[in-house]
Amino acid sequence: MTTSWQEGKVLALSGGIGGAKLVLGLAHVLPAGALTVAANVADDFEHLGLAICPDLDTLVYTLAGLADPERGWGRRDETWTFMSVLATLGGATWFRLGDGDLALHAERTRRLAAGESLSDVIDDIRQRLGVATRVLPVSDDPVRTRVRTHDGWLAFQEYFVRRRCEPTITRIAFDGAASACAHPALVELLHDPTLRAVVICPSNPLISIDPLLAVEPFRRALALCRAPVIGVSPIIGGRAVKGPTAKMMGELGIAIDAMTAARHYGDLLDGYVIDEADAATCATDVDMPVRAEATLMRTVDDKMRLARAVLEFADELSSMHERAFEARR
Amino acid sequence: MTTSWQEGKVLALSGGIGGAKLVLGLAHVLPAGALTVAANVADDFEHLGLAICPDLDTLVYTLAGLADPERGWGRRDETWTFMSVLATLGGATWFRLGDGDLALHAERTRRLAAGESLSDVIDDIRQRLGVATRVLPVSDDPVRTRVRTHDGWLAFQEYFVRRRCEPTITRIAFDGAASACAHPALVELLHDPTLRAVVICPSNPLISIDPLLAVEPFRRALALCRAPVIGVSPIIGGRAVKGPTAKMMGELGIAIDAMTAARHYGDLLDGYVIDEADAATCATDVDMPVRAEATLMRTVDDKMRLARAVLEFADELSSMHERAFEARR
Repeated sequence: MTTSWQEGKVLALSGGIGGAKLVLGLAHVLPAGALTVAANVADDFEHLGLAICPDLDTLVYTLAGLADPERGWGRRDETWTFMSVLATLGGATWFRLGDGDLALHAERTRRLAAGESLSDVIDDIRQRLGVATRVLPVSDDPVRTRVRTHDGWLAFQEYFVRRRCEPTITRIAFDGAASACAHPALVELLHDPTLRAVVICPSNPLISIDPLLAVEPFRRALALCRAPVIGVSPIIGGRAVKGPTAKMMGELGIAIDAMTAARHYGDLLDGYVIDEADAATCATDVDMPVRAEATLMRTVDDKMRLARAVLEFADELSSMHERAFEARR
Repeated sequence: MTTSWQEGKVLALSGGIGGAKLVLGLAHVLPAGALTVAANVADDFEHLGLAICPDLDTLVYTLAGLADPERGWGRRDETWTFMSVLATLGGATWFRLGDGDLALHAERTRRLAAGESLSDVIDDIRQRLGVATRVLPVSDDPVRTRVRTHDGWLAFQEYFVRRRCEPTITRIAFDGAASACAHPALVELLHDPTLRAVVICPSNPLISIDPLLAVEPFRRALALCRAPVIGVSPIIGGRAVKGPTAKMMGELGIAIDAMTAARHYGDLLDGYVIDEADAATCATDVDMPVRAEATLMRTVDDKMRLARAVLEFADELSSMHERAFEARR
């Protein structure tokens, strides 16, 4: 570890709730502005005429200290008058929108309709909310997750929220990914010689990280970047911490253990962090440096401790490999 | 007065706050479903991507018992989280939208975008809210008020809310009115032999009633209807009860006295109700039956008393004229 590394830039790949925890830890331990987040946009959808971006918003709310600590999504100190009145009017109430949260959706929808890009809108809003970390959609082009179930193809939020992940899935597709451009600032950052590390946060690999990697120019830049790429397992003690990760993996025939994400990302990774609880038992079929840490993040201290550990791990790998990681990929 | 008249239908022409008071009185004293309201839509506008219809909503909220009694607009028991968050995002806050009120705008916007007519949406919503009175936009076609000021032409809400009626106006126009169709149910009602009375509520004649009358097929049907048409003065004691009516009249060179609206509507009226306070002093230059009543409506009892008085006046005129009012117009 050298000082210069510690002053470098860091890129985190993240979905919403789970990934945002480590993103917050990284933001706290890094100098202001050193962290950039490449965020999933494939959960985005239009609902009640509003452009809704669940993962981007969770990241911005989390970094701004505005996220609700109980629910994991939406804003703290939220009110729900809109939703309760909408029910009396016969409106769709399956996707819950808080009154304050609605302001972001309405303002974003207005600005997108006026011709601004999603990344510009989010960049302005995170700055207005005092967030030093850049949060960028992986692409300004629409990428939308669909899942094939025994009831046919479902739009992501239909499956995820309306049907509560109940249908068994047989396939996942990312509409628009094949033709989407990567956000140029992300590609530039991946080529930046001062990039210290790339962290793939413990988000659901199938629906939160895969849609980022499905944007080919982004995946290519990631594969060629000279900084170490570290994955953090979303599986702890053989189970997903929260959400449908394990259920979806099971339905798709993917083994649910601590090394699952490492196998899934494969050559993109230079190192992998598992939980201490899995250190003794997890398979060793993956050929890369693995480190065991306390990965369950309940408190801000947990998040900062894991963030420091991930960065130290990356720095160690950098000094061993003399920054030439692209040779592996 | 005969029983058959009392069982007849009544049509009220109304804008928002002032007119809605008499509309509520009429709804209370008439059998359920006997009253229909022809509502002004020329204040409607699109804001933050939402279709907003201030007068229609004030009427529906008032009739549903949901109107805020203090502000005069919007819903009672409202919360304002959306607005306060929108301010932190740099959004436009000059038009205040309550969290519950937003639900109506969002649901209406969604249904209009799906191809429903404004009248169908409002008719469904008022029924969901338990309102027996039909509230119909005078037209499903867009009619939009603009005002010419010393700063040029302004869209109505720009003038009315954003600029708080401060610019001096020199002209008022109703875009779209010339080519707008009248709502067919209103034309049918005006031709209905069981129509007992038409009441022009004490709304601002210039910006709330004129845009209804600017819809030519509606004005024509009103002029030809056989039921008595009664106007109620929006001026009490030489002043407007609330709002910018007097200021606007003054700027346009219209005398501000109790007979102003009678002169303004002219031959369309068969009778006119002024306030008792104006009985001794008001000009007698208008050739029609005039009745003095207590027209200030603070309580529900005030509203019901005035509603009864207006209907009795109409019934008296009917029995005198043997229903042949169209001959006068």
